[in-house]
Parts: sequence; C-alpha cells; structure tokens
Amino acid sequence: MRVNLLKELIIKIRAFAQKRDWDKFHSPKNLAMALSVEVAEVVEHFQWLTAEESNSLPADKIKRVKEEIGDVMIYLTRLADRLGIDPVQAAEDKMRINEKKYPVDKAKGNALKYTDLG
Amino acid sequence: MRVNLLKELIIKIRAFAQKRDWDKFHSPKNLAMALSVEVAEVVEHFQWLTAEESNSLPADKIKRVKEEIGDVMIYLTRLADRLGIDPVQAAEDKMRINEKKYPVDKAKGNALKYTDLG
Amino acid sequence: MRVNLLKELIIKIRAFAQKRDWDKFHSPKNLAMALSVEVAEVVEHFQWLTAEESNSLPADKIKRVKEEIGDVMIYLTRLADRLGIDPVQAAEDKMRINEKKYPVDKAKGNALKYTDLG
Amino acid sequence: MRVNLLKELIIKIRAFAQKRDWDKFHSPKNLAMALSVEVAEVVEHFQWLTAEESNSLPADKIKRVKEEIGDVMIYLTRLADRLGIDPVQAAEDKMRINEKKYPVDKAKGNALKYTDLG
Repeated sequence: MRVNLLKELIIKIRAFAQKRDWDKFHSPKNLAMALSVEVAEVVEHFQWLTAEESNSLPADKIKRVKEEIGDVMIYLTRLADRLGIDPVQAAEDKMRINEKKYPVDKAKGNALKYTDLG
Repeated sequence: MRVNLLKELIIKIRAFAQKRDWDKFHSPKNLAMALSVEVAEVVEHFQWLTAEESNSLPADKIKRVKEEIGDVMIYLTRLADRLGIDPVQAAEDKMRINEKKYPVDKAKGNALKYTDLG
Repeated sequence: MRVNLLKELIIKIRAFAQKRDWDKFHSPKNLAMALSVEVAEVVEHFQWLTAEESNSLPADKIKRVKEEIGDVMIYLTRLADRLGIDPVQAAEDKMRINEKKYPVDKAKGNALKYTDLG
Repeated sequence: MRVNLLKELIIKIRAFAQKRDWDKFHSPKNLAMALSVEVAEVVEHFQWLTAEESNSLPADKIKRVKEEIGDVMIYLTRLADRLGIDPVQAAEDKMRINEKKYPVDKAKGNALKYTDLG
C-alpha cells in the first residue's frame, strides 16, 4: 500500500498556521518568498566550503543543516498544498520530463543545460 | 504501516544521476546552489502578481508552477539524501521547534520573526 | 567628468578581504552563493508584507533594509571585480538589450516575460 | 568632485519603467523578488563548476554572466531608488559595520560567521 507520509505533515502545518491566524499571510506569493529565504539559510552553510568539505560535514553542522532543510520542506509542502499540488507527484512527473530532456547518451559526464546539449 | 513515499523518489533520482555519471557534480554544496536556482524559478512565476492573483492561478500557470515545484522537490530530496537526512523527518522535527519559537499567544495574527516577538 | 564611485568601493573591499586573508574564499562561485544569501536577507524583510506596506516602510525598517542592500552591493561589486566586469557598465549595456526585448508597444502595462510577448 | 555614476543609471531605469507603465508592478516587495530571481541566474552559471573553473571562465561565459550581473545591478538600483536608499552609500556604511563585526585578528584566514567568532 502506498501511503503519502507528507499528508500527515501537511495536516500539521495547516493546524499550525490556523492556530496562529497565519492563513492570511500564506498566499502562494508570500510562501514562494519564504521558501527562497529558507533555501538561502541552507546555502549559507555551504558558501565558503569546498565541494570536498561539503561532502563530509561534521555532525554538529549536519544537525544545523537538517533544521534548515526541515524549514525548506515545511514551506515547500505548504506552498504546494495552497496550490493543490502534490509535491512528490510533481517530482515524479518532472523526473519523467527530465529523462527526455537529458538523454543518457548526450548528458553523460557533462553538466550542460538541456538547451546547450548538442 | 508508515511507508516513506519519498524513498521511491530518492531511488529514482540516484539511478538518474548514476546513469548520467553526475554523482561527481552532486556535492551538497553544488546541490544547495541548484536548489536555490530551482526555487527562483518558482518565485519568478509570482514576482509581478498580487497576493490575490497568486491565490487563484489559472490552470496553465498551475501546470508550469507544478513542474518547478517538482524540480525543487527533486533537488531537496537529492541534497538531503547526500547528507543522510530524511527531509520529512527534518520537517517534523522542525515543526516541534517552531511550536516553541512561535507560541500561539504571542504569534497570533502577526508575522513577526521569533527574535522580534515580545 | 564621469567618475566611477564604485571604484573606491571596490578598492576598500579588496583591502578588507586581503587583510583577513579571505581572497582564498572569494572564488566567483562562492561569491555568487554569498550574493544569493544576502539577497535573501533583503527578501526576508518583505515576505509577509503587502505590496502597499512595502511602499511605505517605517524608518527603522528602512534602516535595516539599507544594511542588507549594502551587503548585496558589496558582494555584487566584489563578484564583478573578480570577473573583471564593471557592474554599472553591465547594467547600462543590459538596459539597451532590455529596450529591445521589451518594446514599449508590446510591454506597456503588462508584466509578461519577453518570451511570452505576442 | 565626487559624481555618482549610478544616478544616470537610476534615471534611465525610471524612464524605462515609466514608458512601459510598469511603476505599478515595482513595489519594493516585487522588486526584492525580481532581484532574487536575477541573482539565481548568476548562480546558475556557477552551480556545477569547481571553484577553480569559476576563477577562469571562458570569454563567452563571462559575456553571459555579465548580462546577468547587469540585471542584478538594474534591480538592485531600482529597489534602492524606490526605498530612497543610495546603494553605494549603503555599501560604504555597511563596510564600516563589517570592519567591527569581523576584526582582523579574529577573522583572519577563517570564514566563520561573526556570531561564531570566539
């Protein structure tokens, strides 16, 4: 049986916002902004690290990044909920599109944007 | 039974990256950057809209936003996977922290940051 | 006489970084990340405001936004300097491109992206 | 004599927006969003590069990055103008604050945030 774990999270977030009378702030426009702010808090942890350092973060740093990833997930889930979008379904559908945009034989080993693939 | 639907998505993304020999590009540092770029593609759809307009998007716009949300979910899932973090668990843990940072009686009806709550 | 005021700023930023032995952190890649983080600190001030509220910020909020705009300007200037780009010249050149991408008769009164202009 | 070159740019941007009847879209809130979107277009050029690669971009890439930096400068200038802020002055004032937040003896050679400096 396929259970959508995110459903429980969505319900918690809805209750959280409702109790605080925050629905009025949570237009998709505002939530998109908040999402970008939370992502920047993830980025901040990595900005001065080398790629190698980012591959082996110490435990206390992982803990802090985990909190920021939690916030990103919360706002992403909330935004999707407000738009009637299932974010996991959206990701699975997009994976199928990406399979076509980035065919293995052309994309292998390079990081070109699909518009720059030969 | 609690099934993590994201698990299937993670496995698909891993296979997608491996087939294209993209693991070498997918350091947490680079993935955090890519995540921020994808979020900006969500934001772009909302930048000139009023809050009201963002609350009632036409169907074709929803379809385009859904694709961008799919991309955000893909990179968020991939980043979390690379760091050994479960993003749904991270969100649930963060919700508990937010409950304390934003007590209902102080946060109700306002959008102050927790550091500015009286 | 045309004097580039930014030149003085660039020189100060260079000295600031050099004294702290930070040149090694200031690759264009890292500076682009830092720029995005600073911009998010601007965005944060506006995320829950209405458009109207954002048009008439109280003085203490202007003061805080000004600091964040200062940081954005610093990183933008530093990034451009590292790439040998004059940011004011880049803006003027881009204005000329934008004049063509958004002809007055087609763009007037709407906020469509140039790729969506009829 | 100290001439603010940005002043000319500001005047051009104002005329550009006015001719297209875009002032109504250019609330500080919306401009902050647009600024974040433009910065992501800079970031996109760097997301899969190594730090070393970002230090020696080929000429055609520099050209494309320059256009994006132009857009960032345009929106930053426009946002600041809407708020009555001089962005170069804001940067110079912020440099003075940063001098204190990051004293040379504590900040030298490390990239710790000021809140994490010992």
